[in-house]
Amino acid sequence: MKLKILGCNSATPAYGRHPTAQVVNIKEQLFLVDCGEGAQMQMQEFGVKRNRMNHIFISHLHGDHFFGLIGFLNSLALYGREKEMHIYGPKDLKAIIEIQLMHELSYTLHFHFLDFKNEQIIYDSESVEVRSFPVHHSIETCGFLFTEKERARVLLPEECRHYEIPKYFYKRLTYGEDYERKNGDIIKNGWLTKEGKKPSRYAYTADTAPHKMYSDIIKKADLLYHEATYEEVHLDKAIDRKHSTAKQAARVAKDAEVKQLLIGHYSSRYKELDTLFNEAKSIFANTILAVEGEEIEV
Amino acid sequence: MKLKILGCNSATPAYGRHPTAQVVNIKEQLFLVDCGEGAQMQMQEFGVKRNRMNHIFISHLHGDHFFGLIGFLNSLALYGREKEMHIYGPKDLKAIIEIQLMHELSYTLHFHFLDFKNEQIIYDSESVEVRSFPVHHSIETCGFLFTEKERARVLLPEECRHYEIPKYFYKRLTYGEDYERKNGDIIKNGWLTKEGKKPSRYAYTADTAPHKMYSDIIKKADLLYHEATYEEVHLDKAIDRKHSTAKQAARVAKDAEVKQLLIGHYSSRYKELDTLFNEAKSIFANTILAVEGEEIEV
Repeated sequence: MKLKILGCNSATPAYGRHPTAQVVNIKEQLFLVDCGEGAQMQMQEFGVKRNRMNHIFISHLHGDHFFGLIGFLNSLALYGREKEMHIYGPKDLKAIIEIQLMHELSYTLHFHFLDFKNEQIIYDSESVEVRSFPVHHSIETCGFLFTEKERARVLLPEECRHYEIPKYFYKRLTYGEDYERKNGDIIKNGWLTKEGKKPSRYAYTADTAPHKMYSDIIKKADLLYHEATYEEVHLDKAIDRKHSTAKQAARVAKDAEVKQLLIGHYSSRYKELDTLFNEAKSIFANTILAVEGEEIEV
Repeated sequence: MKLKILGCNSATPAYGRHPTAQVVNIKEQLFLVDCGEGAQMQMQEFGVKRNRMNHIFISHLHGDHFFGLIGFLNSLALYGREKEMHIYGPKDLKAIIEIQLMHELSYTLHFHFLDFKNEQIIYDSESVEVRSFPVHHSIETCGFLFTEKERARVLLPEECRHYEIPKYFYKRLTYGEDYERKNGDIIKNGWLTKEGKKPSRYAYTADTAPHKMYSDIIKKADLLYHEATYEEVHLDKAIDRKHSTAKQAARVAKDAEVKQLLIGHYSSRYKELDTLFNEAKSIFANTILAVEGEEIEV
């Protein structure tokens, strides 16, 4: 799983930073997470393959998280897209998009409405499961948890040859099955395969004040994105607007025992991000800053 | 009058070029003409002072001409704007904007609806008059004509001193009045002032196929912006989509006897613009290309 940052700023664009948008890449299937204004330009800039994108997740209806969606959807149609596109977001998003479409799109849009009360599996495929979960913001907002499916076991070719396993059975070995010879002998799967790489989990908590309501679902994630809109000196603003400071984000990461913390959604008041970075690192060492165009291995 | 290009591409962004947006500057009062996605970022990039902008003109409801408006209006509120903002556009624009505003803005929006049947004076102040006029596109579309008001006459300071004109009368001299001495002697205005710079006219024809319906209003404009979406080899596409080729744009400029032609709204199929430029210049020599960030003296 890889994550590419298209926009890392909050509310308004500033200092060349764009509003929130991210691309999750799971085995070259791309998932768009929020879509602030300019996201489609950023995709061009950073070589994101929009045809590999079939699912878009919109956390809430503050403009800096969805104003770029209509332009992106419109451009896809102008490029002649035919594949269906799935959008997971607040129910009002449907009317917002539809009122702006002057022509019928060349492809079908499917809207899936988020539940802002309960955790929910919103997408489930062979390779990934996506859950939405409510967070604590000034309007109804969901975060998203991307979980790679259990990876297949990895064949040990020499052992397979040694035990003369027929090739047609190799695929079933990767699912963990034992092989049974015609004479009834059992060749244990553990002799023929080893464990695959551990599946990864990416938790995106959107815009939120720190809150225990999402502490379970993000527990021990490989990567946690947590907004860090303000430096600690502006804690009052963070509380007032139901955002977080960098220190609060880091405390969430620490309590959840995640492997790595990614902070973003920087206030436009900050040209330099050093203080945000240092404040977070003082509490949770394995912190990185969201930087547009950068790709993070989860 | 000065014109700054924020976006010069058509339909979808491409090669770093943005969808249509322009800023007309008349004595430091700024007028926004169309507002494609990313216009607010371009304003930041090019140092456009958004507080000097009180009037926004939207030619039609194709997304590449208005998808950036909601983000811009929203950001103005986040920056604490209190001054009223006037928007001139198709009547459906009002609902499109209003459905996307999650909170009340910090300032009042006034919508003024365009007449797509007749030429209309839509804004009139001491320094400028703006007219809308219908053009020939696939949906209802208006162009805009910006006309500077008659400039004041310019005082000749030595002559004024020579004739001992009292200072309180200087302002009236700039309006063209003669000065009458107490003894009844008349000092002719022409002895005391010279003509001011001729007022300028900028005609923006938005998206359109060439058509006589707007030939009168753009006649002898100082600057004509005419879309030139396609090279001549794609004339069929231009006709089909009610756009123009560069040659057609140049013929319009020639027939209208304008001083200068500015072409833009380039199709995303063109990385290089040389052919568009050369095709237009072959018919109308005083052609310039719209380039983002560049400012043009009208």
